[in-house]
Amino acid sequence: MFTFYYARNSCALATHLALEHAGAPYTPARIDFGSEQQRSPEFLRINPKGRVPALDTGRGIITETPALLHFVAQSFPQSGLAPLDDALLLARVNEFNSYLCSTVHVAHAHRGRGYRWADDVAAIDAMKRKVAQNMADCFALIEERMLQGPWVLGERFSSSDFYLFTVTRWLEGDGVDVNRFPKVAQHLERMNALPVVRKVLADWAA
Amino acid sequence: MFTFYYARNSCALATHLALEHAGAPYTPARIDFGSEQQRSPEFLRINPKGRVPALDTGRGIITETPALLHFVAQSFPQSGLAPLDDALLLARVNEFNSYLCSTVHVAHAHRGRGYRWADDVAAIDAMKRKVAQNMADCFALIEERMLQGPWVLGERFSSSDFYLFTVTRWLEGDGVDVNRFPKVAQHLERMNALPVVRKVLADWAA
Repeated sequence: MFTFYYARNSCALATHLALEHAGAPYTPARIDFGSEQQRSPEFLRINPKGRVPALDTGRGIITETPALLHFVAQSFPQSGLAPLDDALLLARVNEFNSYLCSTVHVAHAHRGRGYRWADDVAAIDAMKRKVAQNMADCFALIEERMLQGPWVLGERFSSSDFYLFTVTRWLEGDGVDVNRFPKVAQHLERMNALPVVRKVLADWAA
Repeated sequence: MFTFYYARNSCALATHLALEHAGAPYTPARIDFGSEQQRSPEFLRINPKGRVPALDTGRGIITETPALLHFVAQSFPQSGLAPLDDALLLARVNEFNSYLCSTVHVAHAHRGRGYRWADDVAAIDAMKRKVAQNMADCFALIEERMLQGPWVLGERFSSSDFYLFTVTRWLEGDGVDVNRFPKVAQHLERMNALPVVRKVLADWAA
């Protein structure tokens, strides 16, 4: 049995959806960012980075969304979450997930976590002002060059769909209207209709 | 035959080393960041993100370092660049590579590319002032919790060693003395002695 550490509104949603989709045996454990539980000595023993997601597999703890998505796909191959045997197609999944974690998530993080990269208040405010533009630029690229439709890879569903869904949900708070990107907006709607998405979001809200 | 697009001093070094180590058939193509060649219409057709590395495989172009490292490892399994059949150990490699791309590379990028995240000069200067501290914090975590020694995974060499080497080389320019991190410093020395590293660095300098 895995233990899956997550926090509301975090990128852990992608991994949570993948675990649920794969039928993985896991117990969810919610970390409360409001009370800074991620910086508690107990949680820092689980993930010294003080972040989620983290998955205790019983044989070791795994962190970082792209690594977790691949781990779930490989551990539960019947889930079809990644084209494991096609190196080029798998590279598409990994490339997409890597772009989301290193560029899009980072662009978003400059709204609420600018203190990571500067100490003075004016600089942190300046970062916030650029977030909507940066997120819109990222999603323009996703719309025009990456999202094939109906799913990220085209006809084939993959972990990248769970990750894209997770990041798309941040757009409104970042000041970007998803309807500027019709394919992304349709993808969001399609994802919201999936039973696995409804279930996990209901658990998060409970 | 692959075509591998790189630029001097960029993170493309990790993938270049992996290709060379694997004995992959590739032609290197240097992109000149000094003349902003990465923003030329020709290069934007190869990678619309305007970044390196990019690998034209003949069947499609792959970008993003973690995706490329996995692609090389999977395409040339005899290279031993990743423990492909051990999901947990492979997750260690992917987790490490994901941390480097989404946190450490991002921390470093705030020194030279702060304009990505803010428009005003004072904010960009404020970001620069925090880079040394952030890089030192990242490398403290690598030293204490991630780098097992002698290689990232312990006795087993992997693509994470090429990627760590690439990022460690940025420390001096970021104002951090690598000798504060003895295991990282030994790793750097060990890597600098590898014939594949000497060859690729000589090619880059030529």
